[in-house]
Amino acid sequence: MPQHSREADAPADVFAWIDEAERAREQAGLVRTLRPRSAASPLLDLASNDYLGLSRHPETVRGACAAAEEWGAGATGARLVTGTTALHAELEQELADFCGFEAALVLSSGYAANLAAVTALGGRGALVASDSGNHASIVDGCRLSRAETAVVPHADPEAARKTLAAHTGRALLVTDSVFSVDGDAAPLAGYAEACRARGAALVVDDAHGLGVLGEGGRGALHAAGLAGAPGVVATLTLSKSLGSQGGAVLGPAKVIRHLVNTARTFIFDTGLAPAAAGGALAALRLLRREPERAARAREVAALLHGRLTAAGLASARPDAAVVSVRAPSAAAALRWAADCREAGLSVGCFRPPSVPDGVSRLRLTARADLTGEEIGRAVAVILRTAPAGAADLP
Amino acid sequence: MPQHSREADAPADVFAWIDEAERAREQAGLVRTLRPRSAASPLLDLASNDYLGLSRHPETVRGACAAAEEWGAGATGARLVTGTTALHAELEQELADFCGFEAALVLSSGYAANLAAVTALGGRGALVASDSGNHASIVDGCRLSRAETAVVPHADPEAARKTLAAHTGRALLVTDSVFSVDGDAAPLAGYAEACRARGAALVVDDAHGLGVLGEGGRGALHAAGLAGAPGVVATLTLSKSLGSQGGAVLGPAKVIRHLVNTARTFIFDTGLAPAAAGGALAALRLLRREPERAARAREVAALLHGRLTAAGLASARPDAAVVSVRAPSAAAALRWAADCREAGLSVGCFRPPSVPDGVSRLRLTARADLTGEEIGRAVAVILRTAPAGAADLP
Repeated sequence: MPQHSREADAPADVFAWIDEAERAREQAGLVRTLRPRSAASPLLDLASNDYLGLSRHPETVRGACAAAEEWGAGATGARLVTGTTALHAELEQELADFCGFEAALVLSSGYAANLAAVTALGGRGALVASDSGNHASIVDGCRLSRAETAVVPHADPEAARKTLAAHTGRALLVTDSVFSVDGDAAPLAGYAEACRARGAALVVDDAHGLGVLGEGGRGALHAAGLAGAPGVVATLTLSKSLGSQGGAVLGPAKVIRHLVNTARTFIFDTGLAPAAAGGALAALRLLRREPERAARAREVAALLHGRLTAAGLASARPDAAVVSVRAPSAAAALRWAADCREAGLSVGCFRPPSVPDGVSRLRLTARADLTGEEIGRAVAVILRTAPAGAADLP
Repeated sequence: MPQHSREADAPADVFAWIDEAERAREQAGLVRTLRPRSAASPLLDLASNDYLGLSRHPETVRGACAAAEEWGAGATGARLVTGTTALHAELEQELADFCGFEAALVLSSGYAANLAAVTALGGRGALVASDSGNHASIVDGCRLSRAETAVVPHADPEAARKTLAAHTGRALLVTDSVFSVDGDAAPLAGYAEACRARGAALVVDDAHGLGVLGEGGRGALHAAGLAGAPGVVATLTLSKSLGSQGGAVLGPAKVIRHLVNTARTFIFDTGLAPAAAGGALAALRLLRREPERAARAREVAALLHGRLTAAGLASARPDAAVVSVRAPSAAAALRWAADCREAGLSVGCFRPPSVPDGVSRLRLTARADLTGEEIGRAVAVILRTAPAGAADLP
């Protein structure tokens, strides 16, 4: 219960400006509201990032519970104080080994991992070249890094090369491996070559590649032969293919030591909860044992894309497990997603300002555990609810 | 295993600059290394932020496990996509009710909560006045907000008033309620008055007040009669008194709606893991049932402080559950903490750059579940290991 009624003491509402912002959002049809789901949702899920279907897998859940029982519900402090358990160290070692890097550092989210990597490797006097399609957490990392930031055209190694060449002094190029909105892959080989030519570091956010790309889901850098390469750093999330929560930075051991000593979102944040570390570790071990899950996620994406484009919808060929379908407008995308939900299918709906190019989309995620029947049902619903004009988009 | 050996292809090490940074840290005695703890650590813990001793409480752990079993190990997506469960909504409602605010929003960390609040309420053209002792996450929030930031002298309402008066347009004042390094409280009444006089918003990070200050641990704003006041917003962590992980923003419902629509660390981050939400909710309910835990944490802090200062150590009177003891130097603080650990006591050691004033300290946290014997043992160890000169500090 508020101690103060809203009519009390203050003569004017200091948040009156929010009323105007809300009206503007309403007029633009861009209001976002939270829709709590129930534990036994009847919806078929093509909206989550649970690419391998491991979030509710009994082994992942058991890993989470066992960790909470052994270590408690929280890490109890920052990692450099009391927040590092033997479980964190174990997870870091196994993540690094699996993905092919020398060392790893686990943080409380992928967002925190990107802020940590970009700020600790950027810094005053450095240049950070950032792909224009990068995730918000990378963009915020650039803003926080005090480095000079150059946004480079999307997926264009030659442009990146020129930008890097124009700067003297320390430089890094940062990119998503798989771009979360459209599901397209970054040109990692070209980006790595541009970095090698210039002596620049390459930082790759493999949030949507881990568990999906590379041998047995070892990620996009492993697939490109760049895992553990000198000058290459990866960031990950534990909340997508690994079905849990948290983020990680992988790279040379000295880069990891440098983060431990300088990255503010590592130093000044409570350690990842043991349950999240335990859940992610259990999922990782399961993926090692069942590497075919990665290929199945890619196969499901190809199936979805093939059937939707055969029916005339506009969808770029998926490079990983994200299938993006263009909508004629933000309002049409919103209604399309609502109609899908009405018909028992949960899909993502990305609208401005969450889309870098301003194009609204349905965003489908291809889970490895979708059955053929479920894929067929999903495609049927999406086609049946498609708005007029959806088939005529470029 | 790294795909690349470290000697491979790159002609020069792009991270050579890190070697120099490491040498500089070594020479300054400021190297930080992670020390994984075991689940059955024999150390007496006066270093964690588990103020109420709830992180390993059976009810908290059961809350975490039950949530993982019901909802899975992860939230599976951003809160606006699939990441909002009925459990998140329940936690938000109970947090808001308990602390006396209209509405709440849960994020993946306190760090993310501060970034969200300061960026969403700041913005271009606004002024953010920030207490010079504020937590790193508030400082980063100011940097990301695109607002004009004015760092105001520590705990000085008159200086804040003048800074706010010198700016026309939207303004907010942001402060920790209890400063994490020295454990002193912010002058909330004076800060609130400065904001009211100017029509500015007041944003208070109550990370170290929740569970410790106010009636039954309702926090510093409740204690100051400011909970739910117009123009007042609180941020919290779920990882300290509530023994779990995560953060929250509390305030008027329209402020929360505004965050849902604009705060990047909310929109672009995976939702808090169900186990963390469930653990925090169980701890909150336990605190409601056993409100005396809050007073006991304050009592333990007063006992620790009283005995240490009686023996001549330099320690400011604690306003909450953090007791800070000054050390003659960074090296002395480091050895002091190591000697305590050797003697079975875990204490925090804060050194530059984690201390705003450059003064190194032992940081003790007063847990509500410490027994009289444990307090006596802790004091004896700290006194026995105190470095020469520790008793002569101001």
